[in-house]
Amino acid sequence: MAFRIPRGTVDLMPGEVEKWQYVESKARELCRRYHFSEIRTPIFEHTELFQRGVGETTDIVEKEMYTFTDRGDRSLTLRPEGTAGVVRSFVEKKVFGQPQPTKWYYIGPMFRYERPQAGRQRQFHQFGVEVFGTEEPAMDAEIIDLGVQFYQSLGLTGVKVELNSVGCPQCRPVHREQLVKFLTPRKDELCKDCQSRLDRNPMRILDCKNERCKELTQDAPKMVDCLCDECRTHFDAVKEYLDVLGVDYVLNPRLVRGLDYYTRTAFEFTVESKGSQAGTVGGGGRYNGLVKEIGGDDVPGIGFGIGIERTLLALEEQEVTLPIDYGVDCYLVTLGEEAKRQSVTLLKALRQAGCSAERDYLDRKMKGQMKAADRAQARYVAILGENELKANSIVVKELATGEQETIALDQFVDYVREGSRK
Amino acid sequence: MAFRIPRGTVDLMPGEVEKWQYVESKARELCRRYHFSEIRTPIFEHTELFQRGVGETTDIVEKEMYTFTDRGDRSLTLRPEGTAGVVRSFVEKKVFGQPQPTKWYYIGPMFRYERPQAGRQRQFHQFGVEVFGTEEPAMDAEIIDLGVQFYQSLGLTGVKVELNSVGCPQCRPVHREQLVKFLTPRKDELCKDCQSRLDRNPMRILDCKNERCKELTQDAPKMVDCLCDECRTHFDAVKEYLDVLGVDYVLNPRLVRGLDYYTRTAFEFTVESKGSQAGTVGGGGRYNGLVKEIGGDDVPGIGFGIGIERTLLALEEQEVTLPIDYGVDCYLVTLGEEAKRQSVTLLKALRQAGCSAERDYLDRKMKGQMKAADRAQARYVAILGENELKANSIVVKELATGEQETIALDQFVDYVREGSRK
Repeated sequence: MAFRIPRGTVDLMPGEVEKWQYVESKARELCRRYHFSEIRTPIFEHTELFQRGVGETTDIVEKEMYTFTDRGDRSLTLRPEGTAGVVRSFVEKKVFGQPQPTKWYYIGPMFRYERPQAGRQRQFHQFGVEVFGTEEPAMDAEIIDLGVQFYQSLGLTGVKVELNSVGCPQCRPVHREQLVKFLTPRKDELCKDCQSRLDRNPMRILDCKNERCKELTQDAPKMVDCLCDECRTHFDAVKEYLDVLGVDYVLNPRLVRGLDYYTRTAFEFTVESKGSQAGTVGGGGRYNGLVKEIGGDDVPGIGFGIGIERTLLALEEQEVTLPIDYGVDCYLVTLGEEAKRQSVTLLKALRQAGCSAERDYLDRKMKGQMKAADRAQARYVAILGENELKANSIVVKELATGEQETIALDQFVDYVREGSRK
Repeated sequence: MAFRIPRGTVDLMPGEVEKWQYVESKARELCRRYHFSEIRTPIFEHTELFQRGVGETTDIVEKEMYTFTDRGDRSLTLRPEGTAGVVRSFVEKKVFGQPQPTKWYYIGPMFRYERPQAGRQRQFHQFGVEVFGTEEPAMDAEIIDLGVQFYQSLGLTGVKVELNSVGCPQCRPVHREQLVKFLTPRKDELCKDCQSRLDRNPMRILDCKNERCKELTQDAPKMVDCLCDECRTHFDAVKEYLDVLGVDYVLNPRLVRGLDYYTRTAFEFTVESKGSQAGTVGGGGRYNGLVKEIGGDDVPGIGFGIGIERTLLALEEQEVTLPIDYGVDCYLVTLGEEAKRQSVTLLKALRQAGCSAERDYLDRKMKGQMKAADRAQARYVAILGENELKANSIVVKELATGEQETIALDQFVDYVREGSRK
């Protein structure tokens, strides 16, 4: 019997995984520059955390969570997103009592039970940042800029920032009331999901993908027209800072984000995809009420989550080649038992000098070993036979140029190291 | 209500997480030099894979797995170790049909429901390597050497390699028979677990931690005395290659490893810990039967798994300070609204030049901002006030030396970048 990978998950194999390493290293480097520190929370949390922190009425909590009972009868859930765990940690470790702001990032797997399709896996991966403890609108703009920088650093083009303000607990009820008033006469024409949203979470109707719902909400009251003075001032300042930072954006009054806890700034990163339909590659916003909701002080927060799969998919569609070096510095070809024995020490010396080095482990003949060197995309092939051993030398060939030199054995490692640095 | 982290898991917070980053980067760099490619398999697999690949009679499968049913009624299990998933991938992707050997490494979380204690968490992390497709004993030695190099690269000292051969399906029954014969008259004196092991898996009695069991097995027949010719030749060659590579080792005939699928070479990395008791920080061995067991061709394999938590614990006990730079390159102190506005652009310019840069986001006064710069372990503090703005300049102070200079604004970024490189 052969075993198969669980549905909706993938193996990241060599050849593909290097792209992930590259994307992650870019994220880490940007976070270093922006002075964000990494935080790693567990893969699972108590189920209640997500019910509270993501929202009982969200699709995620209602339909998509991997929830199970452990041997100690606790209800645990594989994290469906990154923010709740980070906030739980911020509260539990009492970080809110330390000088603010707190600037954290995370990279890792998340889990949602959804129908798998391109760019949507049941185990998927996000790069996210969270900032706690400041309401300064410049931070909102910097966070958005950081996201834009991330895509740019990978060579992704045409990334659009869509921006909205979803207000606060003061002004949102005003919008909600207007919206319900506007939509109630049209209720029967809304899709089933939206009919039930009308009572529970009417703002979510605005981002329904159903064409008829889109039409019906075309002229619906906009949140931005209902903002209270504080939210308006904040929103205007965010836009001003985005201008200062040179970040283009488009206002999207339909942008409400899927999670309940957002306040004020909400944004998404989208990119034109093949079908000329914009695809969301990331998004985020402010969540000034969340820390309190999870049991902490009333500390504001803002962050984003960027999908690694979707980002890689967008890069692929744009045929961006990431600058990844797949090759090995030196492949050692040996002829005869004594050369093979010696190669073990030579390999170790090369590696200790910082070079990547490989040899054959299947007693292949010369030709087979040369083929293997090709497959390994070796920069140098070094050939060690009986004659070379006698002369304390080794033949080194640069594959790209075909140039070949005989080198004294005791200079071999330096030769490869210097050459590999070029 | 405040939420708590699930029992047996931890948050890796800034200050601690940098050690993890460092350890992982060392592992990745070594793997690059040894020409291993990363592979990432899913966090969960079908439960059967572990039943088959780890072994039904192991503690892991019997007592420690996080098993749950998903919404599609599949039995899934959070991976309790790294090898089974990697082998599943090797088989499912038919990698065994490509030129060998295949050299892979992984780093990531594993899950076992155990009683939490120092260095043993329910979510723990391993760095592992797997090589498929070669039986050459030099590879066994290189894998062991790679492990040793890893610990050395971190500055961990006193790591001991314990070595054994557990034979193969040809010779192991011989040993098993001798062992059962030797232990049966002593059965009543064995611990409960070992009494049941005597029928199912008698070799595991050899590594029982119970003192009485240890005594009783003192003079038990050793596997190394029962090896068939092929296994003996292989074992001798492994030892010889370890000598060539300068790797010290001690033979430990009790070393059987916890998992069923090992053949021939078995090894552990141990380090003296505080209580003068040796602690295992990693281990591995050959598993020539496993690929076939999981549904592939009869392809040999060898690998190790190294515990990140245990390695970090050992480093802590030895009071090793990892060379980590926690500080930010430049902290911008601003006085007045206009300076604050300008700082947004300056911050961005610093970051685009590759520097890490930070400022205040809480409208703190000068003194508060200087304190924050201290907390951020800033190399430079740059002060921008009204006078500086008028003169198109900025005051830059190096915190370590107290040296202070006034720099033209258009040379500021270069100044910080050059200084940070020193």
